Amino acid sequence: MGDDYPLNISSLLRHAALNFPHTEIVHRRIDGSWGRTDYAGLMQRVNRLAYALDSLEIGAGTMVGVLDWNQLRHLELYNAVPGVGATMLQLNLRLAPADLMYVVEHSNAEWVFVDESLLPVAEGLADKVDVKGWIVMTDKPSSEISTTLPNVHFYEDLLTDQPEHPEEYNWQFIDEDTACYAGYTTGTTGRPKGVLYSHRSMYLHTLGLISALKIDYLDCVMPVTPMFHAVSWGFPQAAVGAGTKIVLPGRFTADNIGFVAEAMVDEGVTVANGAPSLFAPILESIRKMPEAPDLSSTRLVSGSTEPPLSLMKGFAELTGANVIHGYGASETSPLVTYNWRLKPELADLPVEDKWDLKRYQGVPILGTEVRIVDPEGNEMPRDGKSMGEVVIRGPWIATSYHKLDDSAERFIEGWWRSGDVGVITPEGYLKLTDRLKDVIKSGGEWISSIDMENAIMDHPKVLEAAVIGVPDEKYQERPVAYVVGRDGAEVSKDEVYEVLTGRFAKWQLPDDVVVTDQLPRTSVGKLDKKLLRSQWSEA
Amino acid sequence: MGDDYPLNISSLLRHAALNFPHTEIVHRRIDGSWGRTDYAGLMQRVNRLAYALDSLEIGAGTMVGVLDWNQLRHLELYNAVPGVGATMLQLNLRLAPADLMYVVEHSNAEWVFVDESLLPVAEGLADKVDVKGWIVMTDKPSSEISTTLPNVHFYEDLLTDQPEHPEEYNWQFIDEDTACYAGYTTGTTGRPKGVLYSHRSMYLHTLGLISALKIDYLDCVMPVTPMFHAVSWGFPQAAVGAGTKIVLPGRFTADNIGFVAEAMVDEGVTVANGAPSLFAPILESIRKMPEAPDLSSTRLVSGSTEPPLSLMKGFAELTGANVIHGYGASETSPLVTYNWRLKPELADLPVEDKWDLKRYQGVPILGTEVRIVDPEGNEMPRDGKSMGEVVIRGPWIATSYHKLDDSAERFIEGWWRSGDVGVITPEGYLKLTDRLKDVIKSGGEWISSIDMENAIMDHPKVLEAAVIGVPDEKYQERPVAYVVGRDGAEVSKDEVYEVLTGRFAKWQLPDDVVVTDQLPRTSVGKLDKKLLRSQWSEA
Repeated sequence: MGDDYPLNISSLLRHAALNFPHTEIVHRRIDGSWGRTDYAGLMQRVNRLAYALDSLEIGAGTMVGVLDWNQLRHLELYNAVPGVGATMLQLNLRLAPADLMYVVEHSNAEWVFVDESLLPVAEGLADKVDVKGWIVMTDKPSSEISTTLPNVHFYEDLLTDQPEHPEEYNWQFIDEDTACYAGYTTGTTGRPKGVLYSHRSMYLHTLGLISALKIDYLDCVMPVTPMFHAVSWGFPQAAVGAGTKIVLPGRFTADNIGFVAEAMVDEGVTVANGAPSLFAPILESIRKMPEAPDLSSTRLVSGSTEPPLSLMKGFAELTGANVIHGYGASETSPLVTYNWRLKPELADLPVEDKWDLKRYQGVPILGTEVRIVDPEGNEMPRDGKSMGEVVIRGPWIATSYHKLDDSAERFIEGWWRSGDVGVITPEGYLKLTDRLKDVIKSGGEWISSIDMENAIMDHPKVLEAAVIGVPDEKYQERPVAYVVGRDGAEVSKDEVYEVLTGRFAKWQLPDDVVVTDQLPRTSVGKLDKKLLRSQWSEA
Repeated sequence: MGDDYPLNISSLLRHAALNFPHTEIVHRRIDGSWGRTDYAGLMQRVNRLAYALDSLEIGAGTMVGVLDWNQLRHLELYNAVPGVGATMLQLNLRLAPADLMYVVEHSNAEWVFVDESLLPVAEGLADKVDVKGWIVMTDKPSSEISTTLPNVHFYEDLLTDQPEHPEEYNWQFIDEDTACYAGYTTGTTGRPKGVLYSHRSMYLHTLGLISALKIDYLDCVMPVTPMFHAVSWGFPQAAVGAGTKIVLPGRFTADNIGFVAEAMVDEGVTVANGAPSLFAPILESIRKMPEAPDLSSTRLVSGSTEPPLSLMKGFAELTGANVIHGYGASETSPLVTYNWRLKPELADLPVEDKWDLKRYQGVPILGTEVRIVDPEGNEMPRDGKSMGEVVIRGPWIATSYHKLDDSAERFIEGWWRSGDVGVITPEGYLKLTDRLKDVIKSGGEWISSIDMENAIMDHPKVLEAAVIGVPDEKYQERPVAYVVGRDGAEVSKDEVYEVLTGRFAKWQLPDDVVVTDQLPRTSVGKLDKKLLRSQWSEA
């Protein structure tokens, strides 16, 4: 029954080019200008690119690094590199140089494609890594580019310089277990860990995403999440697979995102993804528009951290857009759960409870299996109260890290241990309550540090709070709260107990409350609880 | 990347039971009463059924026939039989007894499940086939059932009679290439041909269907198409996979379908499938309702024959429901193309052209590849004019018939030859124009018999028309038209030419026009062109 027909991620574009040749792809260039093509045009360039890859002997087994923003050539590489049987390695340009070097070396990347705007990043790597060559992507004539990179080729020259029938590449089926993409995590501790994505897993994830978000050829998809990390959450592939119009916003930052908001409205974007830190300034830009746009058919998938209620309500009230909280990780392709719409059985919830539920990570999409387990791996009840580590398996969930011998402890009998702690409600909604390393293990029970922090921050005098577990002889760990007062206010232990009582059992209350000027944060802005714990131990 | 995680059709129900335990399943019993359960309840019975199958030694490799309407136990078998590694054989109760016997024997069915209302069919087979036993499905006490079947078990007794923890069956992963279902075509010539559906192909088809029709847990699915043929077009699986409410209409006929229409409205059905011959009386029933229901979010997938414009317009105008023309066959799981919504690039078409386009078979769904080819297998241009045989390949398209040595000619290099002739428009819409055996091959060109018949029937004096190709020494074949006059009217060759001129080239006009009282039809009501051709040859 067609079982020999392999699932190939690169077949998505061929489907789009054949069935949606005239559907537009709008893309922003590095100089700020916008370009337009369509699937027929994209396919022509991808055919030429495949010949170019052949000419460099990039094929089965070659690891090909890419340093680029959300630009058109990046989308071409997303399709051509897997199409010739090679593996596209995502190079996260925000990684520390030492980590980026490690990724290139550890993955055995043989070639690196780099956008002209990122030449300094590449040049900083060039003498420390062993690659065959660099391919520079630019709209300028190659003569105008000066670089210290060795063995340089130019993308557009390669595409021009192709044989007689460059628009008819002879695509072959690829074994579906072949890696089409590779990416590395940005773990805060230790080296980045590599994940290989197979054609099969990416294809299934794409189908999952299309069905989860109900994407079809009447939609318009904008991948806001970087295409150099976690395969842009699968959005470019889902867009191509469904034959939607695509808007590629190019290079932008949270501080310079107004044109992204404008394009979203002007081009009629109906599906986009991003972190709350990007959606928040987009919402602010939309607020400043002379007229609030109608985005009532728009689905904004928000990941990486919990979207604030103000963000979700803001979009809903101003534009009608649905901000959908999604959950996943590099190891999970990434989509695992999403908070699509309220289940019919919950229709009678009070409105504020409905909003609160929208902050949950949501329901597993078809294909993924999600459980919460105790430290021995036993499944915990789905009662909305029992906390456990979230473990996940399915056809697009990693079962090992790339070339990492000590990865076994993160993979148990086919399940990936997420390191997240959460509860599952009787209605099937996942809610994360903590990171496993931050949850406080006291007397055989778990106390959520995040829940307690949120509760403490409800006190009007409190600006910030961090709750950590500190060693305790009798109970293993006990909670301690660090608190920053608003405008330097003093906050007493009694005042903290006041807001916690009723919401937490007496034995869960923190043993100590430490008032401090500021809380330590990591380079990416997360609370550095590791440092707090060692500060406590030293004190 | 999870590549060892097999795609198992039976995992869909486990997903639904875990994540949508309280979603309702409404089902009509053979006595006309309605019952209600939910996914948690269904899962409990499927767990018990799996134990029952174990007790009969039904497992890996066992072929299990089912004779049933669209009832709850049928849905249970859809899930439990593949879940234990066995294959569920669909027994089309409308087949001629000799064909049904052939199917049971050819497939090596070892057990047959039969609804009490179909005991006469089973009893007619029993002494002609070699099966281990029969399992009778009834809501009555088994003592009230009298049957001549040998080796009889009773379904409900088997479910009751299970071990201590009957709700916790230990489901195992099944190799995804294992056949989960089997079905036989109802070809008009020769023996039925068997098709095996693998877990993998069915799972992928289910994902394809869910994304194509945008089904989610807010939907309500009613499988109107028989569950004993072409796996009910994949609708029961898509419903379970998406965790929708399900309404099973039980036993009905086109003449007794009023309660199906009522349930559709009362239960809030948003997705249903069926042939035009079923949707037409459903529409008539809705017309008679005191108030026209709002079905504006309802998608009615219409297959097997082209839905008449009056049906599509009728539903749209009266209820807002979208009748979607779909195309497929037993060999294709079945969905291949569907006419979802107009592509944005066609938004400016005149309204009647839009309606005409809705009669087309539509655009391939993601995963299927569709081409039209000439007799040598060369791809024809997608210009909306060039006619060719439709060939299809993909992860859920058959690549052989079950145990049929001479099936090679229908499968060419991974493509299934459909035997249908059609064109593909530049916008990618497939339109069938004929069956390959009926198209007229004249002077190296093809003339569509159906197009010409439709054109002739535009003449007010014409009631019916059939156009056949008759042998010709010079041109291979030439068209001849058989015409039935309205109210016995005489129709001249000139009058026929009159309506054809302008629409057909001069060389395409029929050599002869034969006026006759009536046209021969097959047992299922289709024009019997084979008989017409032999009548012509004899005359």
